[in-house]
Amino acid sequence: MTVEELPSTNEKIHPNILLNKEIIHDKTFKKRAFGGYDIDEVDGFLDLIIKDYRFIEEGLIKEIKMLKEDMKKLRGH
Amino acid sequence: MTVEELPSTNEKIHPNILLNKEIIHDKTFKKRAFGGYDIDEVDGFLDLIIKDYRFIEEGLIKEIKMLKEDMKKLRGH
Repeated sequence: MTVEELPSTNEKIHPNILLNKEIIHDKTFKKRAFGGYDIDEVDGFLDLIIKDYRFIEEGLIKEIKMLKEDMKKLRGH
Repeated sequence: MTVEELPSTNEKIHPNILLNKEIIHDKTFKKRAFGGYDIDEVDGFLDLIIKDYRFIEEGLIKEIKMLKEDMKKLRGH
């Protein structure tokens, strides 16, 4: 995967997370004439990973934001 | 991927996260006689995903735990 294929800074769901669900969904792989990986198995596995990235983005990252906001309020900022 | 291949409850890094870095690292795919996905490309892509899962496990999940503990202290529990 080339650096250009990785999300730019503002597309990143977190500075330390390399990929996002769109990159994984849109990722295409070269085909081999003989003996490559079974396409349906790889695609099915990546679908599970996309589900995880969706939860990480819409669940964990949001939970951290909310906890930090609550902390600020508790500290009276 | 069969349900048996998914992590059991106590192996899960979070109740809503289906996979973990060990499952992805150990995952093997059937080979097709003709025209499957390029093995090096798929393996390289999964290596990036494993890096993300490692950060999610050792970074995000821990950050949430620490924030929750700090909240408890602030609330005087």
